[in-house]
Amino acid sequence: MSDVRAMCVIGLGLIGGSLLRAASAAGHPAWAASASTPDAEAAAADGFDAGTDVTGALRRAADADAMVVLAVPLTAVDDVLRAVAEYAPECLLTDVTSVKGPVRDAVRRRVPRARFVGGHPMAGTARSGWAAGSAALFSGAAWVTCVEEDTDLAAWAEVAALALAVGAHVVPLPADAHDEAVARISHLPHLFAAVLAGVGAQGGPVAAALVAGSFTDGTRVAGSRPELLRAMVEGNRDALLPVLDEALGRLGAARGSLASTGGLAATINAGHEGRRALEELRAATRAGVRVDLTAPDARQGLRALGERGGRLVALDGTVAVGEVAQA
Amino acid sequence: MSDVRAMCVIGLGLIGGSLLRAASAAGHPAWAASASTPDAEAAAADGFDAGTDVTGALRRAADADAMVVLAVPLTAVDDVLRAVAEYAPECLLTDVTSVKGPVRDAVRRRVPRARFVGGHPMAGTARSGWAAGSAALFSGAAWVTCVEEDTDLAAWAEVAALALAVGAHVVPLPADAHDEAVARISHLPHLFAAVLAGVGAQGGPVAAALVAGSFTDGTRVAGSRPELLRAMVEGNRDALLPVLDEALGRLGAARGSLASTGGLAATINAGHEGRRALEELRAATRAGVRVDLTAPDARQGLRALGERGGRLVALDGTVAVGEVAQA
Repeated sequence: MSDVRAMCVIGLGLIGGSLLRAASAAGHPAWAASASTPDAEAAAADGFDAGTDVTGALRRAADADAMVVLAVPLTAVDDVLRAVAEYAPECLLTDVTSVKGPVRDAVRRRVPRARFVGGHPMAGTARSGWAAGSAALFSGAAWVTCVEEDTDLAAWAEVAALALAVGAHVVPLPADAHDEAVARISHLPHLFAAVLAGVGAQGGPVAAALVAGSFTDGTRVAGSRPELLRAMVEGNRDALLPVLDEALGRLGAARGSLASTGGLAATINAGHEGRRALEELRAATRAGVRVDLTAPDARQGLRALGERGGRLVALDGTVAVGEVAQA
Repeated sequence: MSDVRAMCVIGLGLIGGSLLRAASAAGHPAWAASASTPDAEAAAADGFDAGTDVTGALRRAADADAMVVLAVPLTAVDDVLRAVAEYAPECLLTDVTSVKGPVRDAVRRRVPRARFVGGHPMAGTARSGWAAGSAALFSGAAWVTCVEEDTDLAAWAEVAALALAVGAHVVPLPADAHDEAVARISHLPHLFAAVLAGVGAQGGPVAAALVAGSFTDGTRVAGSRPELLRAMVEGNRDALLPVLDEALGRLGAARGSLASTGGLAATINAGHEGRRALEELRAATRAGVRVDLTAPDARQGLRALGERGGRLVALDGTVAVGEVAQA
């Protein structure tokens, strides 16, 4: 474990490009490769060590014992993992994709000897490509850093340190807990936005003339690039299906109630109360916590912290320093 | 028809209170009454002619041949209409509630001799009460002004003039076309927001810690007062049910596709395309149009303009001056 481990970023879109900038600014020797020639050329023109030779970048990572960061779309992860297995099979490996269970499973299958720690910085995705990136993208963002039963805590601490170094706070969670939560607070909202936009458009010019704030807010993310939306939402299929069924159940109950008694109290009150409950959780007074990463129950301690909505804000040697809502 | 017809506003919430301020500023002698003592006292303290005596306000309207504006929640409309029928049965009457068919039907039932023109200013409703109001609330807003087969065009022109005088533009539409459009672009989004907030809250502290922009945007309106949301959404039951079924059909199709092939292309592409189509309609180049309100087909002309997404921006004598997207 070293403060100056080199970084090899594969992918130079919004997240990968921002990470190359931010990690460089934080003092990591860093290079990158992208299958996208325009992104690679733009990054090189901005003075970064970037090109299109993914194989070469991975060989160099193996030689330098660098951390490899997968920053490609989910649909490209499997291909890149084949290259990692061939050229840097034992590397310290992390990723920044939006689902964690499927990537974990793919790594176990393709690169079983890698020291892998899944990650997901919860930073904006409405724009894309190198040009949209910024070293400040992660400032104040939550960066989920996965803790499984078999997670190597030294590797985990390095990934957490990277997230902290670029301005994020760290949320330690099992991959499955992450995937269920983002199905609720990101992927279902994206699906709802698409359906709302489709239904709204059926209203034609009159609907366009009367568009209300509720519609503009509720459909904003439907404007993102469809292929990125699809990769993100389809990629979390296993966690999204039960959440979508829960939503369909609630909508069906509202439909039945509207048609029979005409009342929507249950639905609207639950929505109001739900929003208030989440806001209260976010505004709760927080108490400091410390998790000793060398303790035998360190993994359980990290996961319990994440599952209570807590986060880590610093590493003090081998102690993770964080905060969690007071009981 | 007079430029200085007096106005009697019943209700001093966000819309009624803003209208009392704006109509007064535009030179109309205006008074108001509200069943809410706090709102009435606050309006009086701000120097307006306002109190809690609804009966007295309506008697005065009958004596002065004033325009009566119903600015009460939909659930209170029927009660106020009974009072109108008793104290000002032939008045020039309009309303500012969020559904138009049910109010039209209630007026026909309760006050058949009133010269009624339904109206709906599409202005913000997240905050409520006198204190939330402002004379500038309607500036730049769409104000739907209903045109039915039997609408009295002189009365219609006075209501349209009021909307223009307070800074809105006028969208002439049949009540049923209005109700279908707002089901799509307001009431369904409010229902979706409530369901999203309820499903999100089931994710507990982890969901709260990871809340994404898509969720914050998509649930914003679920934070409004539940009783106002209910009155608005439940009040449009007849128009909302088929729109909700359309949305359930799209979500069900997405669910089936996600479970079988795993693909969401149809849903996500339709959402992207729908949002783009509505934006294009809003951004379309507009051509000027004039509708002569004394022509035999004036009602058809107004409705056709509204149904093409057009709007009126001025009255030039008995000619309505507007604009509509170029074909």
